Amino acid sequence: MGVSPGNPLSPERKEILLEPVTSIREELPLTDWARGVKRSMLQEMLEIVRRPGVLSFALGLPAPELFPKGQYAEACAQVLEKDANALQYGPSLRALKQHIVSLMALRGVACGEGQIFLTAGAQQGMNLLMRLFLREGGRVLLEELAYPGFLQVISPYQPEMLAVPTDSREGIDVEEVELLLRRGARPAAIYVVTDGHNPLGVSLPLEKRRRLVELARQYRTPIVEDDAYGFLYYEDEATPPLRALDEQWVFYIGSFSKILAPALRVGWLVVPESLMPALSIVKESSDIDTSTFSQRAVSAFLDTGQLPSHLAMLRREYRARRDIMQLALQRYFPPQARWKAPTSGLFIWVELPEKIDVSRLVRVAVEEEKVAFIPGNAFSVIDSRRKANCIRLNFSNCDPARIEEGIALIARVLDR
Amino acid sequence: MGVSPGNPLSPERKEILLEPVTSIREELPLTDWARGVKRSMLQEMLEIVRRPGVLSFALGLPAPELFPKGQYAEACAQVLEKDANALQYGPSLRALKQHIVSLMALRGVACGEGQIFLTAGAQQGMNLLMRLFLREGGRVLLEELAYPGFLQVISPYQPEMLAVPTDSREGIDVEEVELLLRRGARPAAIYVVTDGHNPLGVSLPLEKRRRLVELARQYRTPIVEDDAYGFLYYEDEATPPLRALDEQWVFYIGSFSKILAPALRVGWLVVPESLMPALSIVKESSDIDTSTFSQRAVSAFLDTGQLPSHLAMLRREYRARRDIMQLALQRYFPPQARWKAPTSGLFIWVELPEKIDVSRLVRVAVEEEKVAFIPGNAFSVIDSRRKANCIRLNFSNCDPARIEEGIALIARVLDR
Repeated sequence: MGVSPGNPLSPERKEILLEPVTSIREELPLTDWARGVKRSMLQEMLEIVRRPGVLSFALGLPAPELFPKGQYAEACAQVLEKDANALQYGPSLRALKQHIVSLMALRGVACGEGQIFLTAGAQQGMNLLMRLFLREGGRVLLEELAYPGFLQVISPYQPEMLAVPTDSREGIDVEEVELLLRRGARPAAIYVVTDGHNPLGVSLPLEKRRRLVELARQYRTPIVEDDAYGFLYYEDEATPPLRALDEQWVFYIGSFSKILAPALRVGWLVVPESLMPALSIVKESSDIDTSTFSQRAVSAFLDTGQLPSHLAMLRREYRARRDIMQLALQRYFPPQARWKAPTSGLFIWVELPEKIDVSRLVRVAVEEEKVAFIPGNAFSVIDSRRKANCIRLNFSNCDPARIEEGIALIARVLDR
Repeated sequence: MGVSPGNPLSPERKEILLEPVTSIREELPLTDWARGVKRSMLQEMLEIVRRPGVLSFALGLPAPELFPKGQYAEACAQVLEKDANALQYGPSLRALKQHIVSLMALRGVACGEGQIFLTAGAQQGMNLLMRLFLREGGRVLLEELAYPGFLQVISPYQPEMLAVPTDSREGIDVEEVELLLRRGARPAAIYVVTDGHNPLGVSLPLEKRRRLVELARQYRTPIVEDDAYGFLYYEDEATPPLRALDEQWVFYIGSFSKILAPALRVGWLVVPESLMPALSIVKESSDIDTSTFSQRAVSAFLDTGQLPSHLAMLRREYRARRDIMQLALQRYFPPQARWKAPTSGLFIWVELPEKIDVSRLVRVAVEEEKVAFIPGNAFSVIDSRRKANCIRLNFSNCDPARIEEGIALIARVLDR
C-alpha cells in the first residue's frame, strides 16, 4: 500500500497515497461501501514517519517530550491504589466533568456538568454526533479543505457534501454558507474548525463567528465545532469558540489528546442536555464506556491544578517551534511561497506557485531527502487534485533543533 | 428515565425499563432513527445497581476484587518509565498481537499475528465488523435471545432480523439456521456466542459447531463469533470456538474485559488478513487507535507470564460462585424452576412457570427487597414480551458470601 517499503509509488500516479483497498477482498462478503473505502493519508503517513531517519512535518502529532509523563504516572498509581472501581465498567466520572466545565470557562464557554459528555477522543465525538444527525444520503456542509478524519466519519452515510470555499487567511466563507442556506440547502450539520484550522492553521475572525452562529439559529442547523486545537493559541488571548456564542445550535467537540496526551483516549462534547439520552445510547453501542481508569487518572492529574501551567508551557514551546519554522520558510522556500502565521493549532499551510505539484514530490521527499509532509490536495473535499500546490506543515512534533534542516530539505525537493 | 430515583416505574408498564427517549428532543434536528432509540436495560441497570444496599445479579460485570490491580499498576509504571511513545498516537503493538496469538492457542485456535486486529473491546469489535458486512436494511441472522449490545450495534442499519430459536440447554438451533439458508436467506452475517452464551449461559455442543461452520462455508456467509466469555470455562477442558474450525468464514471477537479488566478497553479480532486494510479504516474513523498506553500496559502484564495462573484463579473463583448460586437456587427457588449449570461464562438462566411475569417484579425486587436481576424478555429479539418468565442471573460480581441471601430475596419476590 502507498509508499510503504517495497511498494514505492509510481511517479505517474496522481492521487498519490490514496488508493482503494479493494483488490484483495474479493472473497469477502463486504458491503459496496466497505469495498470502496480508502486509507487516509494520515494512516499511510503513520507508517512512513516511523522510518528511521525521516524528519516528519506530516502528522498532527503533539510533542511526546512535553507529555506530563511523570505526573500522569503518579495519577495512575494513585488511582489504582485508592479506587476499587478504577478498572471496572462504570458511569462517567462527575469529578472529571466538573474539571471540564472549568476548562471550558478558560475557553470562554459557560456550561454545566449536565452538558458535558465524555468520549474516547474528538474523533469518536464526531462519530457520535454524526450518527445522531446524519441519515443515509443526507447533506453535510463543510469547507472545501477539511480534516480527512471527518470525511471518514461521514463516508459510510454516502452523504451529499456541500463544500464551501475556505479562505487561507480567515477560514470558512460564511457568506457562501449563507447563500447555500438561503437557497434552501438544509444540511444535517455544518462542520467547522474555528481555531487552529486543520489543515489551514487559521482562526475564524470573531465577526464571522457571530454571523455563522446567527445563520445556524436562523436556519435551525446544527454546527459541529471541532475544537481539538482551541487551547493551543499563541496570541495573548484566544477568540471564544462558537459554543461561547450559542448553546443550542453549536455542538462542541473537545479533547485531551493535544493538551495532555493522545493515548489517554479521553475527550468530551459540550451539547444541550436534552441530547444526553441519545448520546449515551450511541456511545454504549460503540464501545460501552470511556475507560473508567483513564477518566480517573485524567481527573487525578487535573486535581493537582497543574493544567493551566502545563497549557502555558505548551503554548510557549509550540509558539517557539512555529517561529523557528517561519524563519526557515523565509530563508529557504521560494520567494513566491505564501503563508499566514497561525495564531493557534499545530499547522502552517504554505501556498506555492500553481505550477508546482507537491503531491508528485512526496515520494522523492521521503525516499531521497528523508523528510515528510502532507500535500494540500489530501485535504481537498471535492476534487482530490486541487490544492496540490500547497503543503501542510506540522510544527509541534519535530525536534525544534531540526526544524530548519527539515525545511531546507523540503526546499531542495521543491527546487527539483 | 426508567427506575431511576424519583421516577419509579408504573406497575402497569409492560416493557419495563425499555422506553424511547424521544420526548425531550423535539427541538433537535435528529434523524428518525436517533429519535426512536431506546436505552438498553444494561444501561438502566448500571444506575440501579449502584444504589446503596442493592445486591445485584443484573450485569455481566467481572469481580473487581479479582482484577490484577497491583500487577497492572506495576505494568503502567514500567511502561511510562521506559517507553517514550507510550502516550503518543501509534500503530498497533506487535508484542501484544504476539501475546494474543499465544492466548488464542490456549483456546485451541491457530492464527498468526497478521490476523489479529486490536480494538477498544468486544463491543467495538462488533461495530467494526458489522460496519463492513451490513448495509442499510440488510439481513442479520441471530438467536431469538441475544446480547442487547449487539442489537444496538445493528439497529442504525434498520436491518431485517432473522431470529432462529435458541435452546436453553444447547444454544442456537443449527437446523433452523440451515433451513433459513437453504430457503435462500442470505444474511450479511450470523451472530453467535458459542461459549458462556449471553443470556443463556450455555455452550454449543461440538457437533453443532461443526455443522454451523459447514453451513457458513456452503452458503458463504460470515459468522461473527462473540467469544467475550470463552476463556472462563468451568470444566477441565473447553470446547474450541468456531474459529478453531474455520479461518475464512468465522470472524472472532475477543476481549480482555472479562479476563483482565474492562477499563483497559482492549480487545481483539481474529479475521482473515485480507480484511485488515478495511478494518484499519473503520477503526481509524471510529476513534483513531486503541490506546497505545493500554496496549503497552496489557502487553507488559502479559510479559510477566502471569495470565495462565490468573485465568486459572478466575475459573476457580467463578466456578465456586456458580456452585453457591446453584445450591441457593435449589434451596430457595420454587420447585418448578429449571436451569442448566453453565459450563462457561458469567450467567445462569432460570426458567420459571409461564404464568410468572418476572418483568413486573423487577421494581418490587429493587425497591423493596434491594436485589437486582434482568428479566428474560430484555434479551428477546423479536417480541419484547417473550421469556418474561425467565431470569438472567450473574454470579461473578456479587460477594460470594451474599449470593445465598440475594437468591433468597429474589425467591421472596417470586412468591408474592
